[in-house]
Amino acid sequence: MTEPLRLGIAGLGTVGVGVVKIVRQQAALLELRTGRKIEISAVSARTKGRDRGVSLSGYAWEDDPVALATRDDVDVFVELIGGDVGPAKDATEAALKAGKDVITANKAMLAMHGQALAELAEEKGAVLRYEAAVAGGIPVIKTLMEGLAGNEITRVMGVMNGSCNYILTRMEDSGKTYQEIFAEADGLGYLEADPQLDVGGIDAAHKLAIISAIAFGTRVDFDGIQLEGIERVSIEDIRAAADMGYKIKLLGVTQMTGRGLEQRMQPCLVPETSPLAQLNGGTNMIVIEGNAVEQIVLRGPGAGEGPTASAVMADVCDIARGARGTVFGQPAKTLVASQAALSKSPAPYYLRMALVDKPGALAKIATVLGEAGVSIDRMRQYEHAEPSAPVLIVTHKTTQAALDQALAAMDGTGVMAGAPVALRIEEV
Amino acid sequence: MTEPLRLGIAGLGTVGVGVVKIVRQQAALLELRTGRKIEISAVSARTKGRDRGVSLSGYAWEDDPVALATRDDVDVFVELIGGDVGPAKDATEAALKAGKDVITANKAMLAMHGQALAELAEEKGAVLRYEAAVAGGIPVIKTLMEGLAGNEITRVMGVMNGSCNYILTRMEDSGKTYQEIFAEADGLGYLEADPQLDVGGIDAAHKLAIISAIAFGTRVDFDGIQLEGIERVSIEDIRAAADMGYKIKLLGVTQMTGRGLEQRMQPCLVPETSPLAQLNGGTNMIVIEGNAVEQIVLRGPGAGEGPTASAVMADVCDIARGARGTVFGQPAKTLVASQAALSKSPAPYYLRMALVDKPGALAKIATVLGEAGVSIDRMRQYEHAEPSAPVLIVTHKTTQAALDQALAAMDGTGVMAGAPVALRIEEV
Repeated sequence: MTEPLRLGIAGLGTVGVGVVKIVRQQAALLELRTGRKIEISAVSARTKGRDRGVSLSGYAWEDDPVALATRDDVDVFVELIGGDVGPAKDATEAALKAGKDVITANKAMLAMHGQALAELAEEKGAVLRYEAAVAGGIPVIKTLMEGLAGNEITRVMGVMNGSCNYILTRMEDSGKTYQEIFAEADGLGYLEADPQLDVGGIDAAHKLAIISAIAFGTRVDFDGIQLEGIERVSIEDIRAAADMGYKIKLLGVTQMTGRGLEQRMQPCLVPETSPLAQLNGGTNMIVIEGNAVEQIVLRGPGAGEGPTASAVMADVCDIARGARGTVFGQPAKTLVASQAALSKSPAPYYLRMALVDKPGALAKIATVLGEAGVSIDRMRQYEHAEPSAPVLIVTHKTTQAALDQALAAMDGTGVMAGAPVALRIEEV
Repeated sequence: MTEPLRLGIAGLGTVGVGVVKIVRQQAALLELRTGRKIEISAVSARTKGRDRGVSLSGYAWEDDPVALATRDDVDVFVELIGGDVGPAKDATEAALKAGKDVITANKAMLAMHGQALAELAEEKGAVLRYEAAVAGGIPVIKTLMEGLAGNEITRVMGVMNGSCNYILTRMEDSGKTYQEIFAEADGLGYLEADPQLDVGGIDAAHKLAIISAIAFGTRVDFDGIQLEGIERVSIEDIRAAADMGYKIKLLGVTQMTGRGLEQRMQPCLVPETSPLAQLNGGTNMIVIEGNAVEQIVLRGPGAGEGPTASAVMADVCDIARGARGTVFGQPAKTLVASQAALSKSPAPYYLRMALVDKPGALAKIATVLGEAGVSIDRMRQYEHAEPSAPVLIVTHKTTQAALDQALAAMDGTGVMAGAPVALRIEEV
């Protein structure tokens, strides 16, 4: 274990540069902590000449990440290219086939091809690690896979996309619309090149799919996630939810139920007193529940150069110290195909609707809800100038099916002045 | 690695029984996750016959933990006896001398003898792990030592004793005095056999000493901790702090400063909006700050059968998977003697005092503070029936030395109707 550990880093964006900086600036500390020198043999990126604010002299350059991944002087291939297919996947596969360990921050690749990559890695005796792929600087993979290894995990949930949380908290603070804040965030460079990855919940759902596999010993199943982004969250709903004591978050939840694996990524209301509600801006939070540990909450920066590089370096140090182990916490071939739950677990719901302003309108809605078996916990009708009356309802716990039935029946009452909004209230 | 990992468990209190239950009930899951069967070869406790709610048949019994620790059929000695000297230490040393790995939940032993035990373990090539010794179910040791291994840690702080936090939050909720709630907590069995370990801050300080060693590469230095318990926290201060927007917590802080290592465990005020302030009852919270990761917050149950056993099992699973490594994150012989900082870093302070009710009293206090270089941020004088006037002051950031000078000078003003209370306000 006294040989240096030699890295090949592909992708020199924010995170790649952050990793190079740590390896250079913390060399002595890293050696003291791992018992080995950590070195960079070679790097690769799309553009060679660009000034990245850190010296790359002394590292070999490869234009082709596959060539980098298979170099004799690379022990660990660090994949920071991104994208679920293309060079990232090609190079990862090449490295694993060559029996080299791989560290990646690539949540899309793992969410789409995690099973095949895990089987390949384990067949070759290689390690595939990805702390940086989920929740940035928060060591959530390590906590799930190692720190809580003695637990049967019952539920994991959290806020896993900082950009969405930024947009929602900015809407709340400023009173501006989704469209206005989206434009602001985009202008500040807070969104992915394809913003749909963020606001559509896809990026967060990639992370949730990975978490599910570790938590429940199931094959990564991105398609099994019930997915909805934040595009339809309106400033009216943020205000109304606040009035009822809630905040709206893009919340990921994965839990094993008697009906199968329930994976959801959708805007939800959470009580304003819960830790999740108090999460502002780009911070992420993961709540893990296990049968022995009860509940652990982890909070930290979900992105950024330093935090993400910190997560990559955790994997580097683990490998330098000799850590091996499986990709998802148990042998890939033992992961079972998840049965996606056909229905969501019951929950209270928030309903916002505009009713035509005439006698008996509210009674009709209450009747329709009652007939569908949805009971009302709290209701509020607001003063209004418009011809329609804004009404908020918080239901008792109910099923999505009962709620859908009620929403469909509302349509026929003739008292709806617009489509109602329904959002799940998550009990945290 | 297909041989079973055989445990010898000494100490069958709450945590020991919790570990036995997990090993029995989660056998299949543990084998899947670690690739090995986890077995218990032998157990030891003070009383053999007692019904502990879990079957011990099939395990050899040893009256003497030293004999247990050195059995041929024990690979890992699990020390759950407690106490910084005596059987716990004797057996731990015996196991390490025999080259056996040790897992312990014993914060007192590590805080007092961590350096010698670490040197012994590393000399013998044995692993000594102690996730359960700090913050119960929260994987804080793993996070510091592995998850943030790429960081230079700058500060760690937290609420590390659930009993103290229970007492302080109960005082706040009930308006009852420290003495009343202490009696209540004692009656509920929430306190150590020697309650001074809890309320004197000693138990929490043991944990802080261990954290410091990992965070800063220093030898465990319990005596270097500036230590004060919660005994002098009055219900008046809890009320007054709330009125100024703060909560009082027994807060541990360790940070490396230009003046040396600053370790403090003392009642502090924290802003009521901070995550630390929102911690109720027996929950623990650890805030870790590093140069790359910025800030990570970990929250979870600080004690109890399940959570603490969960932490022990994390160490068991790591060892089963082949983890080795040093005791405090770098070789014990490279840990440097910490220079305890002679003075604390500057901070704002909360002052509560009773002044004799005559003209100019407040002016005299303000003058004394000004002469000592302590400037006032906010001041409040309350309506009162008594002959003395209650006054609260929140200072701007100042040094302990300046504050002490001001407090000494107040004594000579002739306007003090009692000793003033001064509490540090921690910026979190």
